[in-house]
Amino acid sequence: MAPSTADLLNTLRTGDRGALAKAITLIESTRPVDREAAIELLGQALPFSGSAMRLGITGIPGVGKSTLIDAFGRHAIAQGRRVAVLATDPSSQRTGGSILGDKTRMEGLSRSADAFIRPTPSSGMLGGVARRTRETILLCEAAGYDLVLVETVGVGQSELDVDGMTDLNLLLTIAGAGDELQGIKRGIMESADAIVITKSGSWDPKALAETRSALRHAIPFLPPRESGRRPEVLLTDALAGTGIPELWQHVQGLFLKDEESGYLQTRRTAQNVRWMEQAIGEGLQTLLRDTPGMAALLAAQQELVRTGKTSALQAADVILGRFRG
Amino acid sequence: MAPSTADLLNTLRTGDRGALAKAITLIESTRPVDREAAIELLGQALPFSGSAMRLGITGIPGVGKSTLIDAFGRHAIAQGRRVAVLATDPSSQRTGGSILGDKTRMEGLSRSADAFIRPTPSSGMLGGVARRTRETILLCEAAGYDLVLVETVGVGQSELDVDGMTDLNLLLTIAGAGDELQGIKRGIMESADAIVITKSGSWDPKALAETRSALRHAIPFLPPRESGRRPEVLLTDALAGTGIPELWQHVQGLFLKDEESGYLQTRRTAQNVRWMEQAIGEGLQTLLRDTPGMAALLAAQQELVRTGKTSALQAADVILGRFRG
Repeated sequence: MAPSTADLLNTLRTGDRGALAKAITLIESTRPVDREAAIELLGQALPFSGSAMRLGITGIPGVGKSTLIDAFGRHAIAQGRRVAVLATDPSSQRTGGSILGDKTRMEGLSRSADAFIRPTPSSGMLGGVARRTRETILLCEAAGYDLVLVETVGVGQSELDVDGMTDLNLLLTIAGAGDELQGIKRGIMESADAIVITKSGSWDPKALAETRSALRHAIPFLPPRESGRRPEVLLTDALAGTGIPELWQHVQGLFLKDEESGYLQTRRTAQNVRWMEQAIGEGLQTLLRDTPGMAALLAAQQELVRTGKTSALQAADVILGRFRG
Repeated sequence: MAPSTADLLNTLRTGDRGALAKAITLIESTRPVDREAAIELLGQALPFSGSAMRLGITGIPGVGKSTLIDAFGRHAIAQGRRVAVLATDPSSQRTGGSILGDKTRMEGLSRSADAFIRPTPSSGMLGGVARRTRETILLCEAAGYDLVLVETVGVGQSELDVDGMTDLNLLLTIAGAGDELQGIKRGIMESADAIVITKSGSWDPKALAETRSALRHAIPFLPPRESGRRPEVLLTDALAGTGIPELWQHVQGLFLKDEESGYLQTRRTAQNVRWMEQAIGEGLQTLLRDTPGMAALLAAQQELVRTGKTSALQAADVILGRFRG
């Protein structure tokens, strides 16, 4: 397989979007036969990765993620960037994760030669994040994309997962939104480096001011980010183009500060070590599940635990005994 | 071992605190030879467990946890309860986890025949929670304690861990405490069922009102608890005895509501299944670490990942390969 992954990588590095798409499909494959090639390809791509700003973008459906990503991405391209969007919006999954769906959602960006939009098929989703998003980020970087946007849908766990792979995260919210703000899930505000009120031109100025003030009152109760920062609140209106250059400046400023302080490197190193640990844990779970008869035993022991007939530790002991034996 | 764990359980069930302490020491033991007996004992204790209200109590050092637990516990005993306190305050660990340390901290409670106070030796700590706190709760219940208080120290992870073993959690905080409130760690406010401002008699009424108001403004930004609730803010002054009966009433009310709605049972069942999964995961990690030569390989691969010389997935693959081989 060695020549073929090396060839694929070489083509991908010329900026060939077809090769990038093919490489991502390879690493997303669940076929055991593809796994070895995928790991080899990632190893080969590693020296060419790391050059992008990795930015998570989250917010509940309807908050205007696609519109903001479209405007933000086009602005970055106008500044000379090449932009990859890893889109995990369920709306694109409901339509089968078709590229057409995302192209419609991000019309301007999808027409640019400097943008790559990758929807995630719903089969590849793991708690709101694509199962292979980390790996896809590396491949996009090797293909020369220097701004990678990872979109998540505000379900909580996915933002914590994405926080383990991005450099910075934006939380999008709308104004006049007492109830909406209250619906923000565990961990989401805590993983935001900046909070963006979208569609700012559509709101009553009083509602806008109230939301901004409410957010600013709530932020001191958030634990600071690992970088020591707390998020600022910004306003955008992506359709009108308002606030997009300011958002770009703000995010760039945070990134440069983290780069200069060395925090960026520290963060990425810690993310990689954690990633290794998670991959080991997942590998162990796979070995466990693949043990003959294990599925039935797991289900039976879980039922005994659920009904209080056995303790959790006894059940674990039985399962580990079968695994070892 | 079978007769001896059965004997130990029988003695423990008569309310013999020495037997309870001995049983806890057995389950805390890290000697492989004790593990089988510990699992057996827990299995035998299981049918006699589950009858307590399990209450987590957290707050930063100096907030008055011991004083509140002392007053709260004595009030519960006056209402006919038997109270077990699983104390994980680092101050008791610094003094070697001596019972004397905790007896001094909870003077009134330690003199009661209806209280059992168990400090945790620092060797048995795992991220702010005793490694065997779950198991200890079951043993205390089998010994007839129907209020189990689990003290944690506000370091974040421990509160999430405790939230996986308790029915309800109290967050203790002090007034006039903008900075102190801002220091509350990730997850702590999110796992609180009630927030208690302690030492209320000591504060300037204006500072007290401000803190209460600030907390009430922040609470809507918390995601609701799984029960659907958001925490209320209560005032206590444990030394003066103020607010303790009200706190007891409030906590009892929440517990009864959860019991009647069926949420309590749902929560405990989910906790047990999660516990089983965690025990399996820990068992797998132990098997991995016990593989000959694994420690050196893990360290070497981690260093390659840290320095960017190998990808996390390649490293995991090498490690899993050695484990399988």
